[in-house]
Amino acid sequence: MNKIVPERFYKLGTQPNEMRELFEYGKKRKLEVGDDKVYDYSLGNPSSPAPAALNDSIREVLGKYSSIQLHGYTSSQGDQASRQTIADYLNKTHGFNCSGGDLYLTCGAASALAITLNAISMPGDEAIVFVPYFTEYKVFVEDAGMKLVEVPCRRTDFQIDFDALESAVNEHTKAVIINSPNNPTGAVIPEKDIIKLAKLLDDAQKKYGSAIFLIADEPYRELVYDDDITVPFVPKYYDNSIINYSFSKALSMPGERFGYIMVSPKSPYHDEVYFSVCGAGRSMGYICAPAIFQRAVPMCLGQTADISVYKTNRDILYNALVEYGYEVVHPDGAFYLFIKAMEPDAYAFCEKAKSLDLLIVPSDTFGMGGYVRIAYCVDTDMVRRSLPAFRKLAEMYGK
Amino acid sequence: MNKIVPERFYKLGTQPNEMRELFEYGKKRKLEVGDDKVYDYSLGNPSSPAPAALNDSIREVLGKYSSIQLHGYTSSQGDQASRQTIADYLNKTHGFNCSGGDLYLTCGAASALAITLNAISMPGDEAIVFVPYFTEYKVFVEDAGMKLVEVPCRRTDFQIDFDALESAVNEHTKAVIINSPNNPTGAVIPEKDIIKLAKLLDDAQKKYGSAIFLIADEPYRELVYDDDITVPFVPKYYDNSIINYSFSKALSMPGERFGYIMVSPKSPYHDEVYFSVCGAGRSMGYICAPAIFQRAVPMCLGQTADISVYKTNRDILYNALVEYGYEVVHPDGAFYLFIKAMEPDAYAFCEKAKSLDLLIVPSDTFGMGGYVRIAYCVDTDMVRRSLPAFRKLAEMYGK
Repeated sequence: MNKIVPERFYKLGTQPNEMRELFEYGKKRKLEVGDDKVYDYSLGNPSSPAPAALNDSIREVLGKYSSIQLHGYTSSQGDQASRQTIADYLNKTHGFNCSGGDLYLTCGAASALAITLNAISMPGDEAIVFVPYFTEYKVFVEDAGMKLVEVPCRRTDFQIDFDALESAVNEHTKAVIINSPNNPTGAVIPEKDIIKLAKLLDDAQKKYGSAIFLIADEPYRELVYDDDITVPFVPKYYDNSIINYSFSKALSMPGERFGYIMVSPKSPYHDEVYFSVCGAGRSMGYICAPAIFQRAVPMCLGQTADISVYKTNRDILYNALVEYGYEVVHPDGAFYLFIKAMEPDAYAFCEKAKSLDLLIVPSDTFGMGGYVRIAYCVDTDMVRRSLPAFRKLAEMYGK
Repeated sequence: MNKIVPERFYKLGTQPNEMRELFEYGKKRKLEVGDDKVYDYSLGNPSSPAPAALNDSIREVLGKYSSIQLHGYTSSQGDQASRQTIADYLNKTHGFNCSGGDLYLTCGAASALAITLNAISMPGDEAIVFVPYFTEYKVFVEDAGMKLVEVPCRRTDFQIDFDALESAVNEHTKAVIINSPNNPTGAVIPEKDIIKLAKLLDDAQKKYGSAIFLIADEPYRELVYDDDITVPFVPKYYDNSIINYSFSKALSMPGERFGYIMVSPKSPYHDEVYFSVCGAGRSMGYICAPAIFQRAVPMCLGQTADISVYKTNRDILYNALVEYGYEVVHPDGAFYLFIKAMEPDAYAFCEKAKSLDLLIVPSDTFGMGGYVRIAYCVDTDMVRRSLPAFRKLAEMYGK
């Protein structure tokens, strides 16, 4: 390499993003064969518009506050009233008892995760992630100086494999990251498994005399589609919980970068962690989350983009793929389907799909081979048009 | 300390912010003695409202773009068209030749600095700052793993002391941070000194076979008040220049966090640095700068808040303070006056000022003793009302 800049950052900055490259390919391909003949399932970008409440709230705060009040600095952790409004909403929704003082507003879940991991990382610490996982976990964990420990999920349902987890937890374990509803599998961790996970971590803390933080990365919390599916609020089950939330998906505003860190008030290390979050944020150049959204988003709590389109897409795709002979675990949330590739090499499988103008992402991007991710945050019309290509792809494998 | 969180971050998170504490004291004191009897010069927050163009542009983009276009992800470095618009503006204004591909949009100057320093920091590297300096430089430099090297300014005019600089530059020097117009002194580095600085750094690069980056931290660029004062555009004078810009002060929108990094296309290390900036940003959890401002701010380029109020305040204060016997260097920009404390201990001096309900900040916060900072981004009425207190303070020291 060179001696001017750190190799790690240069590599991260030049690393091709497979999903984005596929998306760019799709754009070009559409020019060649027509928009309606390319089936792009590459990116996890919300396709349902933000609820009207978002723009209405932005317009309202533009009129309601003076320029200095609205666009001025808030405290670094965020406006106190805004944080309290969000805390009140969490308490009401989940029967919990946190306050604005437990929240630190962030530029989305990515900054929440990066800050949280830096804030708790001590030399020798390890962070456990469940495979498959969102690619950036590796980046954030390693940048925080922790060792990434990958624990495979059960292949049958993409839920936690507790035997595998138990053998991975040791005296160095400092964090366990869960992401439910999950990117890329769509799995939602049921309450009984959260209870089991809490017990396992509590036992480990006692055994090793350590603190293990359960980090719940929850950008997809609101994206569940069936009445019998709920996403447990982990701080109710485990005291050393930290929530990393983003409004990106619920309010279809991923570009605006707005979310929060909630350090559970039940954690015996609450103050150490909260102040370390403030310090880590400060040292990483975070001052306050974008002020206009600190004012506008609390006016939209409980609202979401119209997520029924995702449910429709999921149902059409799931049923069709099962019919065509794909091995699919029924996804309960987020907007992803994770299906088994029909040959061992997911890249080769995706190349075949690409020859049918079906753009899907090999699971290698998510830390494991042999599967593909289908991001169904797209037009329902495109889903319908894409079905013959999925059928044809299966037929190429003799299904 | 404890073994749960890094001591450094915990300390940074709990460290009292003297300026903010003074501001909070002022709020309480106003309740006791009345709003008009407390003269709060503690915080560097713009007091002039954003130009109407800012809110107009926000309203316009809310109507012009679809929700998905407006609030969706841009590329990590920022929307290409927005970056090009800003580059075009820079080229037109400064007779330069950069492109959108040289820009990386950030959450303000703090994140620009934190990302830039991380992006260029190699083991053993040193970063030079000129004393007095904005407190957070120390935080960002040290967090990036660099050694902070403090070079005192000339006390006579707070300009670069080239002898002191020359003896501080060595084979480990990787960055020199300048901040012109300056916080806390208000000094603007004149063109002849930028030329001299460029020559000194070029010579050092040749001598040591090294790369030294000149980082221009420019949130106050537009805040100059006299026709004969210009702020040189450093990339025209020195190839290894990196600009860290923020719209916080020019557009009075510090809470919205929007700015950019511009890696000079003339740098022989442009690509290494630019991609390392992308990688460092990624690993610190920055994805894209808030999207609504990526669209709205380029529509306001060249506009500023009404800065005439700052000029009025500066002129009233400067003339009065000189008359009362204070030692003041005439400030050419930003919204700060930096005056000599009338006793060696600036804290003691500020306590005496406080007893007159005059809230000013000891220079120790900026890395040197014996001075105080007066942030005159306040109501002109308050400036006028405060003059008797400044006079009385001087009288307490026999002036």
